[in-house]
Amino acid sequence: MRVTDRRTLLQAAAALPLTSVAANIAMAQAADATDAAAKAAPPKDVTRTLARYLVGASYDALPANVRKEGVRTLLNWVGVAIGGSRHETVDIAVAALGPFSGPQQASLFGRRERFDIMNAAFINGVSSHIFDFDDTHLKTIIHPAGPVVSAIIALAEMQPVSGKEFLNALVLGVETECRIGNAVYPNHYDVGWHITGTAGVFGSAAAAGKLLKLNEQQMTWALGLAASQPVGLRESFGSMNKSFNPGRAASNGLFAAILASKNFTSSDGMIEAKRGWANTISTKQDYGEIVGELGKRYEAALNTYKPFACGIVLHPAIDAAIQLRNENRLKADQIDYVDLKVNPLVLELTGKKTPQQGLEGKFSIYHAVAVAIVEGAGGEKQFSDRAVTDPMVLSLRGKVVPVITPEIKPEQVEMTIVLKDGRKLSRRIEHAVGSVEVPMTDQQLEAKFSDLADGIVPAASIRRIMDACWNVEGLSNAADIAKMSATA
Amino acid sequence: MRVTDRRTLLQAAAALPLTSVAANIAMAQAADATDAAAKAAPPKDVTRTLARYLVGASYDALPANVRKEGVRTLLNWVGVAIGGSRHETVDIAVAALGPFSGPQQASLFGRRERFDIMNAAFINGVSSHIFDFDDTHLKTIIHPAGPVVSAIIALAEMQPVSGKEFLNALVLGVETECRIGNAVYPNHYDVGWHITGTAGVFGSAAAAGKLLKLNEQQMTWALGLAASQPVGLRESFGSMNKSFNPGRAASNGLFAAILASKNFTSSDGMIEAKRGWANTISTKQDYGEIVGELGKRYEAALNTYKPFACGIVLHPAIDAAIQLRNENRLKADQIDYVDLKVNPLVLELTGKKTPQQGLEGKFSIYHAVAVAIVEGAGGEKQFSDRAVTDPMVLSLRGKVVPVITPEIKPEQVEMTIVLKDGRKLSRRIEHAVGSVEVPMTDQQLEAKFSDLADGIVPAASIRRIMDACWNVEGLSNAADIAKMSATA
Repeated sequence: MRVTDRRTLLQAAAALPLTSVAANIAMAQAADATDAAAKAAPPKDVTRTLARYLVGASYDALPANVRKEGVRTLLNWVGVAIGGSRHETVDIAVAALGPFSGPQQASLFGRRERFDIMNAAFINGVSSHIFDFDDTHLKTIIHPAGPVVSAIIALAEMQPVSGKEFLNALVLGVETECRIGNAVYPNHYDVGWHITGTAGVFGSAAAAGKLLKLNEQQMTWALGLAASQPVGLRESFGSMNKSFNPGRAASNGLFAAILASKNFTSSDGMIEAKRGWANTISTKQDYGEIVGELGKRYEAALNTYKPFACGIVLHPAIDAAIQLRNENRLKADQIDYVDLKVNPLVLELTGKKTPQQGLEGKFSIYHAVAVAIVEGAGGEKQFSDRAVTDPMVLSLRGKVVPVITPEIKPEQVEMTIVLKDGRKLSRRIEHAVGSVEVPMTDQQLEAKFSDLADGIVPAASIRRIMDACWNVEGLSNAADIAKMSATA
Repeated sequence: MRVTDRRTLLQAAAALPLTSVAANIAMAQAADATDAAAKAAPPKDVTRTLARYLVGASYDALPANVRKEGVRTLLNWVGVAIGGSRHETVDIAVAALGPFSGPQQASLFGRRERFDIMNAAFINGVSSHIFDFDDTHLKTIIHPAGPVVSAIIALAEMQPVSGKEFLNALVLGVETECRIGNAVYPNHYDVGWHITGTAGVFGSAAAAGKLLKLNEQQMTWALGLAASQPVGLRESFGSMNKSFNPGRAASNGLFAAILASKNFTSSDGMIEAKRGWANTISTKQDYGEIVGELGKRYEAALNTYKPFACGIVLHPAIDAAIQLRNENRLKADQIDYVDLKVNPLVLELTGKKTPQQGLEGKFSIYHAVAVAIVEGAGGEKQFSDRAVTDPMVLSLRGKVVPVITPEIKPEQVEMTIVLKDGRKLSRRIEHAVGSVEVPMTDQQLEAKFSDLADGIVPAASIRRIMDACWNVEGLSNAADIAKMSATA
């Protein structure tokens, strides 16, 4: 037993009242026996192994496809952060935190205020999640960019960093949170944790720690301080608290990395120890997901982006509608009715026939198909109060006829649009655009970005920001992206 | 089903990928069946009931014994916060966070720097826990003052508040965290959570929310945002991360209350909902502990204070040693040997015979008894590097003979000091000073305070600060205590 372990044990024991000490010893012994029976080999040095990898991993070692996905992750994040920036949730956070902010170190995307980097990381993280339109690591339902990019883009404004170093930190942060998420998903999520906030704080700490050039011991401590600050419960979904979670994960991870950079210590095995993160927060721990094939297998390459500003359950139908509309230059008044074979889940989750408000539109297969045909899109604007009360959309949504078809998988749809002239236009979707199988194209990402940023930053800036994102590896200062995304 | 519930559910569903949706529905149905079988009646409005109580509870309604214990909690906290303020851990935190701090709104106890209230709450919370010498709610092992007082004493400097209002908020904060702790202890603690940080954030939010005069809905949200930010794992014990936890609980709760004061929303049932805090973070939920007899039964009246700067397992022996020493004006060189009947736990946890460093002294029954006889105390100074290498202490500790005696309970001890002249001095302790049964006297609290503050603030200030604490209910501005506890 090493000295530090012993000290930890002794200090832990010293802090306990007597009755609890006796009870805990008995319980610990019982638990040890159970653990020994249940688990083949105890995990070793998971936190330190991860830290060592993070400290050593260089931009040059990143495969081309991983770099490319990192760039797409960045561009998509900037778009949603700008897009969400005028939401009431952000207005409130800015007003509430302004009186406590430190020096004006970092930009708020889509806004003119400047905050210290901790508060800026929080607010940008909130913005980027408000529309539930950010990126998704489908294996864990983590939204990876929010915690990570919010932290390091703020840090980059204070401490200049090249675009290559920035992209490397971004990829390593995403890699860290998704691997840790894999280790505990689905049990951890099922019990009630909002995994974007609980795993995300590790991603933020890892990425910020990389930019701060932490050594192996400091990175180990940063991950330990991150483990001490999980954020978010699923019960908060539907309130501002949901967007709070990735924002707070970003600022918590940054807080951890900054303290660790000055040698604020933690324990060395905070992820894998018996009373560490994974055992405390989940009934499943698969440490191989964290430390297996580091630098070889990249979860960061599996990131996906939503083309449509609603639940994925609606995406196949919207995809089919837009394809048929565009290929046939369809107008709403040509249509007799829309026949739609869908998995039972679709009506269970999105069966609202007459949505009155924009948000309700996200839970209406009728509205989603109608607005997609009328406007050729499924962005945030198509789920606004305006869109759900548009007369042409209203008229068409009454002609959408979903038919529950158990043979149709949730990711599939079969649509037949019957025209008044008797023609039938059909399309079967196996995987909607935005899935791993049919990723959004760069052009589609640009269209999404433009739609989100429209009206918030000038058109010329939109082009300039997107170009800067695509060219991040050529930037001598990654903070340029933040500066051009703020408004005057 | 209310609209907000429905929205929550729909938004939650909308955020999921398809495969997970199907899996989760199946799992949720299975879980529902199990829950229904296992639980008599689902809890109702726990968060809101607590919020309503907090909003309505007035200083005038506090029983005298609760007010008195609140004052003692305050005095003890100020002492340990000043005492820990020069520790390396605090130096690091101050250096790391200085560049990000906002306006100089709040004092650091025992130091001259000023920080914004969020960062000040964190740093003072760290200071107050460093020596593991703060207060303890023995039923849960929560150290109540750290998260609560750190938050509201900072807030009071920004927003003036009378001493009576301050004391009321302090009591309500302690009450909140201890009741919530009761609801999940011991399961929650046993699995690995540092309960001071996880329950503490509720205490901080409640107390800060009270001073911010939140209404019932805002207080409900503040508790919800607090639920989203639990802090601390037991694996961190023995590192700086342990003191981090109450500090971060303080700043997280303050952050929650400030956002809620501007109507940043959360869900309404964050403590008791199916995917809320208690179900996610613990396998035991006893909601009656949270909402039962509010305003009648006070956990805040059960707070205790450590007289000695080491684990409670050593307290009976130190207590006996000091009593015999003082009553007989004992000198170390009169002593032949010290016979000590102890519970087996004592040697298991504190059996170190030759401690080399101050910290190791806390795990040595030999040192603890020897230094108590030589110096008549068991404070932080008696567990310093100086103390464990003091020749007289070293000589005496070799004469301490602990005898494992299973009939002796952990809270008891039987000591017989055999003198060289043949006399035998005996003392049996049933409950050591500092227990609920034998609370520290006000005089003992003052002696502890003075010892901690000695050398950090001038002697005249020590008296002035203690008087201000005792007289807090008469202060027109509670922040006076913070201002006089900072150094020039």
